[in-house]
Amino acid sequence: MRGLLIGRFQPFHLGHLAVIQEIRHRHPAEPLLIGIGSAQASYSRENPFTAGERFEMIERALAEAGVTGCLPVPLVDIDRHAVWVAHVTSLLPPFHRVYTNNPLTRRLFEASGYEVEGTPMYDRPRFEGTRIRGLLAIGGPWKELVPGAVAAYLEELRAAERIRDLEGEPTGARPGAGR
Amino acid sequence: MRGLLIGRFQPFHLGHLAVIQEIRHRHPAEPLLIGIGSAQASYSRENPFTAGERFEMIERALAEAGVTGCLPVPLVDIDRHAVWVAHVTSLLPPFHRVYTNNPLTRRLFEASGYEVEGTPMYDRPRFEGTRIRGLLAIGGPWKELVPGAVAAYLEELRAAERIRDLEGEPTGARPGAGR
Amino acid sequence: MRGLLIGRFQPFHLGHLAVIQEIRHRHPAEPLLIGIGSAQASYSRENPFTAGERFEMIERALAEAGVTGCLPVPLVDIDRHAVWVAHVTSLLPPFHRVYTNNPLTRRLFEASGYEVEGTPMYDRPRFEGTRIRGLLAIGGPWKELVPGAVAAYLEELRAAERIRDLEGEPTGARPGAGR
Amino acid sequence: MRGLLIGRFQPFHLGHLAVIQEIRHRHPAEPLLIGIGSAQASYSRENPFTAGERFEMIERALAEAGVTGCLPVPLVDIDRHAVWVAHVTSLLPPFHRVYTNNPLTRRLFEASGYEVEGTPMYDRPRFEGTRIRGLLAIGGPWKELVPGAVAAYLEELRAAERIRDLEGEPTGARPGAGR
Amino acid sequence: MRGLLIGRFQPFHLGHLAVIQEIRHRHPAEPLLIGIGSAQASYSRENPFTAGERFEMIERALAEAGVTGCLPVPLVDIDRHAVWVAHVTSLLPPFHRVYTNNPLTRRLFEASGYEVEGTPMYDRPRFEGTRIRGLLAIGGPWKELVPGAVAAYLEELRAAERIRDLEGEPTGARPGAGR
Amino acid sequence: MRGLLIGRFQPFHLGHLAVIQEIRHRHPAEPLLIGIGSAQASYSRENPFTAGERFEMIERALAEAGVTGCLPVPLVDIDRHAVWVAHVTSLLPPFHRVYTNNPLTRRLFEASGYEVEGTPMYDRPRFEGTRIRGLLAIGGPWKELVPGAVAAYLEELRAAERIRDLEGEPTGARPGAGR
Repeated sequence: MRGLLIGRFQPFHLGHLAVIQEIRHRHPAEPLLIGIGSAQASYSRENPFTAGERFEMIERALAEAGVTGCLPVPLVDIDRHAVWVAHVTSLLPPFHRVYTNNPLTRRLFEASGYEVEGTPMYDRPRFEGTRIRGLLAIGGPWKELVPGAVAAYLEELRAAERIRDLEGEPTGARPGAGR
Repeated sequence: MRGLLIGRFQPFHLGHLAVIQEIRHRHPAEPLLIGIGSAQASYSRENPFTAGERFEMIERALAEAGVTGCLPVPLVDIDRHAVWVAHVTSLLPPFHRVYTNNPLTRRLFEASGYEVEGTPMYDRPRFEGTRIRGLLAIGGPWKELVPGAVAAYLEELRAAERIRDLEGEPTGARPGAGR
Repeated sequence: MRGLLIGRFQPFHLGHLAVIQEIRHRHPAEPLLIGIGSAQASYSRENPFTAGERFEMIERALAEAGVTGCLPVPLVDIDRHAVWVAHVTSLLPPFHRVYTNNPLTRRLFEASGYEVEGTPMYDRPRFEGTRIRGLLAIGGPWKELVPGAVAAYLEELRAAERIRDLEGEPTGARPGAGR
Repeated sequence: MRGLLIGRFQPFHLGHLAVIQEIRHRHPAEPLLIGIGSAQASYSRENPFTAGERFEMIERALAEAGVTGCLPVPLVDIDRHAVWVAHVTSLLPPFHRVYTNNPLTRRLFEASGYEVEGTPMYDRPRFEGTRIRGLLAIGGPWKELVPGAVAAYLEELRAAERIRDLEGEPTGARPGAGR
Repeated sequence: MRGLLIGRFQPFHLGHLAVIQEIRHRHPAEPLLIGIGSAQASYSRENPFTAGERFEMIERALAEAGVTGCLPVPLVDIDRHAVWVAHVTSLLPPFHRVYTNNPLTRRLFEASGYEVEGTPMYDRPRFEGTRIRGLLAIGGPWKELVPGAVAAYLEELRAAERIRDLEGEPTGARPGAGR
Repeated sequence: MRGLLIGRFQPFHLGHLAVIQEIRHRHPAEPLLIGIGSAQASYSRENPFTAGERFEMIERALAEAGVTGCLPVPLVDIDRHAVWVAHVTSLLPPFHRVYTNNPLTRRLFEASGYEVEGTPMYDRPRFEGTRIRGLLAIGGPWKELVPGAVAAYLEELRAAERIRDLEGEPTGARPGAGR
């Protein structure tokens, strides 16, 4: 049977990699589905990268680290929490264990009878998407927080410039909408 | 002809009950539709309970208080205010009077030719969904603010625990989306 | 606990009424939720009446027949069958038994652990929405197929005229779209 | 005040042009909004052209014919007929007269209090979108059925080839979906 | 070929008019499409006016100022930035130049190969939708910030009253939803 | 760089397997994305299986056949063909070649600058989803048309029974909707 880890990976960082390595170590015989959450979102402050770009980050980072047995899958949001587990379940091949520290995710999966396991605590305040995006925007020391392959890819994408543009926008900004 | 009262009822509290009793008293011959607004929302900070759970709260509270002549109806939001009245009208049996103190709701219904009546002022700052959810989260004195039947149901649902989990999330949080 | 019967009721006819009476007779202590399916649909060949108009038909017919203990609830479709039961469950107060002869509905509810009961067979080919809409369109003997209160309401609505207009349209026709 | 004519214009043909000229002649002082219906649809059998391409056809044809006072506006469908008039009204500047021979459109606008006027009958079976698309697909004599400027534009777009590809698909075909 | 300027125009003010006049002056032979962004939004704090009302403001203001060669087009949002340019392109007739100072809009159009030109800087802090809506709400000196024709129209609409009602609501408020 | 093959795989059959093997043979160094189209659909006549079930079929069949280098990805439909390529591109990691014999898919990808390659012709009339679903429904010789691992999985799912139920429904049937 498979396990499932869901995240937004904006961007994929060393904290994510550590969690995946730990899960693969705990359950080496269990393939791991990596759900790329809010897959429909991109080019926004909270979600600068497309699901496809995040997919690429994950593939490159896992290849670089020699981690196998993982399957990234984009998961488009459904704006109704009460059907969210049924939505995720219908899109993914069978899995029986969910890894999350998020109380809402845990609550919804447990209510549907799934086994939920916490993920190991890696240095959380340091490895956090919001913080890394902030460092990218101001040109701070972000590179040491992501896998080397992701750092290279973010430079290919000219991510710092993209994030800088988006940081100036209010949350929920839409293209074409001035003030 | 029927009247219509719309609310989110997160949760249904004594203020709601007092308004309904007052309306039933004013117009005893007029059945009252109780629109459960944002029916698609649940498991979020602003909307912890599903429409079905809110429906159940209303049914139990009205039965306990001996109030008759009320019909709860879940109303899914439509994200376009300009068509909202047409949307509500298409889902409900004919009604000719709307009870609301909300200026946007009043404005939209009046623009479509409906008669809008204010609702009586019951001790507002005290009976307010946001405040009651907050009290539930911190274990404060919430029970005296809801009908007995609702208090019992909220305990069945382990509502305090659910709300506590959700309070930790940012507004608009989605399942599966860490930071 | 409650039971649930779902239908589109386009229009509500004597076959529907017979089924409801039979269910109420079988389980008199069990309130019956009457889900008005495809509630978002109206003014189309398959669904000429709004959910609100169908709600009104049901209320009038049940009052006329002296049937109590029923709660009509509009149910907007969700275009993903795999989450449909979770959708319905989130909108309705708790129910534990579903009445249906529809294999898809039975299959989806059973897969979610609900008890499903068949409905009694009343003269099916005669009492069928499609046939009654056809009779309305051509001015045939439709009145004997619906409760008296519904017949009167359909005349108020000038239903025959509406259906005649819609019958000329292809399935899936949209307003404003000529050929 | 303005008038409103809605169509799908797949493609814009001489019948459409005749109707517009007749309306402009009847009410020369009244600007005419030309609603491009099902604006979200394209690359399908029923709707091969994007709203933008149809917009371009209309602009070129009216310029060629010297018709002024017309404003094309793309109108995305809303899948709920009961809110359709509110939807259209919210997107367009004020208009007070609607031109249509479509019974559903007439019914919905009249129910909202609009004045509806029939459009003149130009040789209907001959000038019909379905027929013209069929002629394009088989290389028949379609050019004499559309304004010269539209014929030239359809050739620029290599419309015959596009329609031929789409004609092979079942109605409702989606990209990427084999059989 | 055409140019494209997108804005929300809540409301259309003298800053917008100056930008349009400047663009028309720079490229007199190039018709200008004026995209009315977030066309689905209205009766909210950020977007008090319907797309149709904004369309009317633009038409009246351009007529008053004697500006020709402009085509207003409502543009409904699509909640996926990665497909936004494809969405806009499919709704509009061909254009080859986009005018914007918004970094997100610029980024998305440039990524799709469009030429993007900045718009001239007119006294920005003064002419800003948010500020003008605030002045309308408190009865401040808003009239000098919009074209005369728009001022008259806003009074017809009793805009101050509408905005005052909406200002009391939290961002994202929905009709029918109390607290 | 990667290749992309999209299909609905209702169910995954030997024709699909042959195409994948041929592509892997042609371009062994190029990982192959397998897009599971109409991923939101299930429990309908045309689409009896969920995306997750189809994902499982593909994984099992490829493992059985020893095919490596393939990545299945569920692709939810977007009901606007003009933005479909942008939608697919945003969800998938970079790919530069598309395999399809479907003219609409070819047309849309070529219009966006992708290289499109036809897929080899395996005995088409025999290996066709519609035909295999029909054989499943009537208990005909379907097993020889799918990989052994898929046959076993379809029996686990009691697919014949599911399809039989769904075959009785009209196209576009919805749960809960009688006639």
